[in-house]
Amino acid sequence: MAAERPTIAMIAREVGVSVPTVSKVLNGRTDVAPATRARVEEVLARHQYRKPTARSLTRSGRLIELVIHEADTIWAMELIKGVERVAGPARIGVVLSELGGSHRPRQEWIDDVMARRPLGVVFVLSELDGRQREQLASRGIPYVVVDTQGEIPRGVHTVGSNNWNGGLIATRHLIALGHRRIGVVAGPRDILCSRARVDGYRSAHDEAGIQLDPAIARWGNFRSEAGYEHGGALLDLPERPTAIFAGSDLQALGVVRAAQERGLRIPEDLSLVGYDNLPITEWLNPPLTTVTQPLQEMAGLATRLVLELAQGETPSSTHVELGTELVVRGSTGPVPAA
Amino acid sequence: MAAERPTIAMIAREVGVSVPTVSKVLNGRTDVAPATRARVEEVLARHQYRKPTARSLTRSGRLIELVIHEADTIWAMELIKGVERVAGPARIGVVLSELGGSHRPRQEWIDDVMARRPLGVVFVLSELDGRQREQLASRGIPYVVVDTQGEIPRGVHTVGSNNWNGGLIATRHLIALGHRRIGVVAGPRDILCSRARVDGYRSAHDEAGIQLDPAIARWGNFRSEAGYEHGGALLDLPERPTAIFAGSDLQALGVVRAAQERGLRIPEDLSLVGYDNLPITEWLNPPLTTVTQPLQEMAGLATRLVLELAQGETPSSTHVELGTELVVRGSTGPVPAA
Repeated sequence: MAAERPTIAMIAREVGVSVPTVSKVLNGRTDVAPATRARVEEVLARHQYRKPTARSLTRSGRLIELVIHEADTIWAMELIKGVERVAGPARIGVVLSELGGSHRPRQEWIDDVMARRPLGVVFVLSELDGRQREQLASRGIPYVVVDTQGEIPRGVHTVGSNNWNGGLIATRHLIALGHRRIGVVAGPRDILCSRARVDGYRSAHDEAGIQLDPAIARWGNFRSEAGYEHGGALLDLPERPTAIFAGSDLQALGVVRAAQERGLRIPEDLSLVGYDNLPITEWLNPPLTTVTQPLQEMAGLATRLVLELAQGETPSSTHVELGTELVVRGSTGPVPAA
Repeated sequence: MAAERPTIAMIAREVGVSVPTVSKVLNGRTDVAPATRARVEEVLARHQYRKPTARSLTRSGRLIELVIHEADTIWAMELIKGVERVAGPARIGVVLSELGGSHRPRQEWIDDVMARRPLGVVFVLSELDGRQREQLASRGIPYVVVDTQGEIPRGVHTVGSNNWNGGLIATRHLIALGHRRIGVVAGPRDILCSRARVDGYRSAHDEAGIQLDPAIARWGNFRSEAGYEHGGALLDLPERPTAIFAGSDLQALGVVRAAQERGLRIPEDLSLVGYDNLPITEWLNPPLTTVTQPLQEMAGLATRLVLELAQGETPSSTHVELGTELVVRGSTGPVPAA
């Protein structure tokens, strides 16, 4: 026998409260006693209650939520623009939340989102725990994750870019220039995209038959300070690398500084590849060779997916990965003569 | 006899519609015939109807609007962070709108804002026309302008920084280093803040008794391309400047490129001062001497002012200007020997 699709009335009956009380909890209203609220949430989750998602996209005052783990970089700006360029013309307001460096929103944030009743949520480098996912699902609020930082739970829609390919093409470029001792200052070890880039770096070595030296591979945090610190450590090694793949453009800036302080010229003494192709990198001194991620397109695609889900449509694919490309500028050159 | 304070009932009677119809127009609902709506708007404006502004700041689902003329730069990111850091802890959602480079929102945007009923609006380098101002006022939606780009209408609250002082201290620093031929690539001529910076530059010359040469003063647009183009033109003059005040950090990047292409070293052959102290400038090559505007504080203060106004409070001052400071780094040095 097929399970009956749960209704608000069924939930109310089981908890022993009125239908309006269940509605209040679903709409994030604060005028429900915490104990009652917890019981309602528990029964909603047990029955996997789902509010119908198909809504009119034409009513006014509509919102979409954009959640960014940290709005500290130009990188975040590109993603914000990508969401704005889709939401703006559709007259959908974009509510921006910054998690202050955390990768998971606090429960109050979820409560506020439920009260705002947005069409959906775009998460950037951030994710929900199981309970938070269930809460959004029961309210019929769809979401899409851009550039996943961890394992992707079943059924969650994601938009990413091919980070493995990015690491591969950056490293192949350096190998083609004759470099054989290529250091890497990667992003954080606990973020999937930085691990994928390092694996691409490894594969490029494998296919060229070059032995990897773990002594010249380091994990950073995407910031200039990390590039400065780890880049400096690599350049102080007795047998220093002739090229460094910096894992992010901001880290590359730190490596430039470390090289300068040691009297090393770029690209004559050290070749350097960044990652992200931030708008400013073509104006750097020297202009930076880097890997382009289509950040605006990724965010725009995630926004369109959320709007499709909000209209009750089923997107053709659950996980989409956009391509990465190498942009060759002035920071890479032939390996220096020994 | 004092004029009677207009009520919704009075407005409805005068237009010849029902009270709910006037309410719908006030709340940005779209289910009112355009002709009726126009008549209601006209009578609301004529009577200067004002919805009471004092609202609870404690109900959930509350929003504040942030309007940025162009989210193209790191500069915008700093302002967004300033708003987030005040709104986030207060659990107020920030709706971000980008005007795509325009300095005035379209009417549809105003309609959507009225439907969203935010606590208030923070405008950055953007402003409203008289009709739009009246529409927000009649809905009891207060607003504050950050870094005004034009003349400030009476009664509009603003938060800025002391741009005149910024131009003054940047130029004084160069004069103290012995420079007498100091070029300027300013921001756009039609934006008040860039004119104030140029006036500070002039005053520093006046107080040092140095004659200004209009041939080495140019208006740009705050972007790297403008710094490259106008900086290059200044450096190609028969009697080129020994220092350039670049009006923005992004323009300074363009001047660096122009100098490099002409074989000029910074600061040995050319001293350079930027404006904004973007986070990336300390990592540039050379690190940039620049003027700090407290962008995050300005945006945070504007947000607090909006929240005060939303609670019916009267802020102690209508126009607030925060201080600017010089940050001396590696791009400025003594005037080269003739």
